[in-house]
Amino acid sequence: MTATADVLEEYLESTADRRMASYEAFLRIPSVSALPEHAPDCRRAAEFLADDLRAIGLEHVEVLETGGHPLVYGDWLHAESAPTVLVYGHYDVQPPDPLDEWELAPFEPLVRDGRMLARGAADDKGQVHMHVRAAEAVLATRGRLPINLRYLFEGEEESTSTNLDRWLEQNKARVAADFAVISDTGFFEGNLPAITLGLRGITYLQVDVIGSSIDLHSGMYGGAVQNPANALATIIAALKEPDGRILVPGFYDDVVPLSDADRAAFAALPFDEEAYRASLGVPALVGEPGYAVLERRGGRPTLDVNGIWGGFQGEGAKTIIPGSAHAKISCRLVVDQDPDRIYELVRAHIVRVAPAGVRVEVHELGGGLPSLTPMDHPATQAAARAIEATFGQAPLFIREGGSIPVCASFTSILGLQVVLLGFTNPDDKAHAPNESMVLANYETGIRTIARYWEELANLPSSPAR
Amino acid sequence: MTATADVLEEYLESTADRRMASYEAFLRIPSVSALPEHAPDCRRAAEFLADDLRAIGLEHVEVLETGGHPLVYGDWLHAESAPTVLVYGHYDVQPPDPLDEWELAPFEPLVRDGRMLARGAADDKGQVHMHVRAAEAVLATRGRLPINLRYLFEGEEESTSTNLDRWLEQNKARVAADFAVISDTGFFEGNLPAITLGLRGITYLQVDVIGSSIDLHSGMYGGAVQNPANALATIIAALKEPDGRILVPGFYDDVVPLSDADRAAFAALPFDEEAYRASLGVPALVGEPGYAVLERRGGRPTLDVNGIWGGFQGEGAKTIIPGSAHAKISCRLVVDQDPDRIYELVRAHIVRVAPAGVRVEVHELGGGLPSLTPMDHPATQAAARAIEATFGQAPLFIREGGSIPVCASFTSILGLQVVLLGFTNPDDKAHAPNESMVLANYETGIRTIARYWEELANLPSSPAR
Repeated sequence: MTATADVLEEYLESTADRRMASYEAFLRIPSVSALPEHAPDCRRAAEFLADDLRAIGLEHVEVLETGGHPLVYGDWLHAESAPTVLVYGHYDVQPPDPLDEWELAPFEPLVRDGRMLARGAADDKGQVHMHVRAAEAVLATRGRLPINLRYLFEGEEESTSTNLDRWLEQNKARVAADFAVISDTGFFEGNLPAITLGLRGITYLQVDVIGSSIDLHSGMYGGAVQNPANALATIIAALKEPDGRILVPGFYDDVVPLSDADRAAFAALPFDEEAYRASLGVPALVGEPGYAVLERRGGRPTLDVNGIWGGFQGEGAKTIIPGSAHAKISCRLVVDQDPDRIYELVRAHIVRVAPAGVRVEVHELGGGLPSLTPMDHPATQAAARAIEATFGQAPLFIREGGSIPVCASFTSILGLQVVLLGFTNPDDKAHAPNESMVLANYETGIRTIARYWEELANLPSSPAR
Repeated sequence: MTATADVLEEYLESTADRRMASYEAFLRIPSVSALPEHAPDCRRAAEFLADDLRAIGLEHVEVLETGGHPLVYGDWLHAESAPTVLVYGHYDVQPPDPLDEWELAPFEPLVRDGRMLARGAADDKGQVHMHVRAAEAVLATRGRLPINLRYLFEGEEESTSTNLDRWLEQNKARVAADFAVISDTGFFEGNLPAITLGLRGITYLQVDVIGSSIDLHSGMYGGAVQNPANALATIIAALKEPDGRILVPGFYDDVVPLSDADRAAFAALPFDEEAYRASLGVPALVGEPGYAVLERRGGRPTLDVNGIWGGFQGEGAKTIIPGSAHAKISCRLVVDQDPDRIYELVRAHIVRVAPAGVRVEVHELGGGLPSLTPMDHPATQAAARAIEATFGQAPLFIREGGSIPVCASFTSILGLQVVLLGFTNPDDKAHAPNESMVLANYETGIRTIARYWEELANLPSSPAR
């Protein structure tokens, strides 16, 4: 360990309590971007973050209006001739429901068994907080950063980043960089350090099936009218085979098939399907025939109902034909599928298969492009060295099933290569009750980030300039 | 009009305000039998009714325990050599949701445009109230009833009459009668006076489709696991063709086909399918091919989803694979389908078509036998004369789609012929928001009931003894 690293480590050890208190304070703000009633909380989280950036010595810190939940920007640009990195994360979180399945109040963080438990502990407030703490430690111990940093923290990632692309289009100069680092991914099964190379895109839509203007008595009217809930089930069943094959005509047209090399890379990952199945508590793993679980998750598109509702949901029996029934449906996409084209294909198929006797409306609720980044990029390799130096083992290179639309936006709008450097444990329960972050990942990850900036400064020539 | 009828009419006219106040007070009690939190309200409604019966001069009035919501009994048995009639109605009501579609508070009754608006105004508190008011008027003006009456008012009709059959088995002597009158049906389309001859049976069940123990991130897990909501849609789509034909093997085995005479009777009813469709606001009427709407509604079985839910139902987008998905499903049955056998057939089919990767549980939530009564019974013909004398036109004889399981119970357990004498308007919105009772039906119906007791007393020999 270098003398500089020793000093950094001492600083981090001596400030551990303060760091936890700040992490918890950040998690206490219920910044749920999808729910309008939490708009003030999203703004509060943005202000919290801006204050934090100012306090540690970042410059040009600003809460930026987007029309929706604000962005937070801050920079430090005094490392002449060193590369400039745009760091992205998001301070908004998923809705906490179903609330009754939480073992704690989702916005009252709790440390238990070496984990921080709270909504956002991992996705993505925890990782945003790690970045700020890494910069704080380096600035506090060295008075400067080895590279130039621009932070851009978003507040609409969990509600499909509605306003980000337009903002990026209009503010390219403000976020000019050599490449981008997004910390919104995690480690591989078994909590093995990993760098994500591939992310799926997404298209998200809502289907409304509308019958009579009121719920009808199922005895008086049963047999006379189409039932919107039955009709919705017919529609959904026509979208995908129970084995996972998507039935929407044209859906697979633009999918780049997995090469033999891709499949070999998936097969080389240490993965126990049976242990994975058991950990999920499901009787069987199910997905597109002919593909292994990791291939289906990382390299193939999907279609899933995210929510469905209509009619009576209470205890006991209510004998009605619901006036309407509704579903939220999303597709995860892979290169080169285009979210807007897929939305149109799915919409057209829904309209085509809709039974008679009901009105069917389809609305797009957002989308994002898939992405795939090369393993041999110097910034990716520098990240791999930083991980190995701090976690004690070389990272795996993986493709993940989730979507970070901003990743594709950074490439398509800003022309930036993206490194997906994420630290969450695979059992973090992101988007589910009892979300958690393993504190060892959080703490070591802060060291990894600091080390990464050093690795980048030491590159023979700055990458991708 | 006879002198006796004049006195009765004078009494009813002079007590109209008090009658409305009592009707409203009864409707103000939210006696929702399906929701456990309303159990005290159901008891309160039973006590209200018992007090009312005592006040008008009924005897042996009692609130009877059943293990669930209580029954209310009362009798008047001093009309020697006249027939004894068992009158049934129910004081419980459907849940009022969706609350935001009511134009008034469902339990704060309101008179508007000649209608009483409130949950239960028609189904069935309004009709129970009519019976009590008819007896009150006759007893007040004549000091006695022309026939013997036993009232049995139930509190679990809207939650599948869980405890009634057992009570009837154990109390046959207490409710001994020559025949039964059930007032829980209504008039024909256009508010034309009608007597219902056929009622459908019902079997009601819940399907729970269970995947992982928590909601999963649809990106991280999409493609790896079966989605319970998609699986539920697959199951529901396999139960019925979109055109209405039920796909459950054996479902139609015991259905008594409609005879040519049955079909001619349906065809003879004054019914405008287009006006009916327009009144429901649906783009088309849909049901089993080869049958007219009235045949499908009154003479053929159905299968309908009454409610469906799972995953995210909020605004915006939440990217999860729900941990579970659920549906309430019921079948309306016709003679000679048996509810328990149909439940078993549907359950077996659900299990058979359930996709891999999820657990599927099916629970029966109640059932009731279908019934069909002959038109030429003297008690039915006496009811027809009473309707014609008071409403000014002869009633239509119809088959209705709803289920009144007690109708079959009265026949099978007590051996009683049943007359379905009901007065609600077809647009009463029973089970839906803004339920209403046309006050002209309510008022004239009270006169019909009083007249009916006279008609029965005047029969040459008491019927069905």
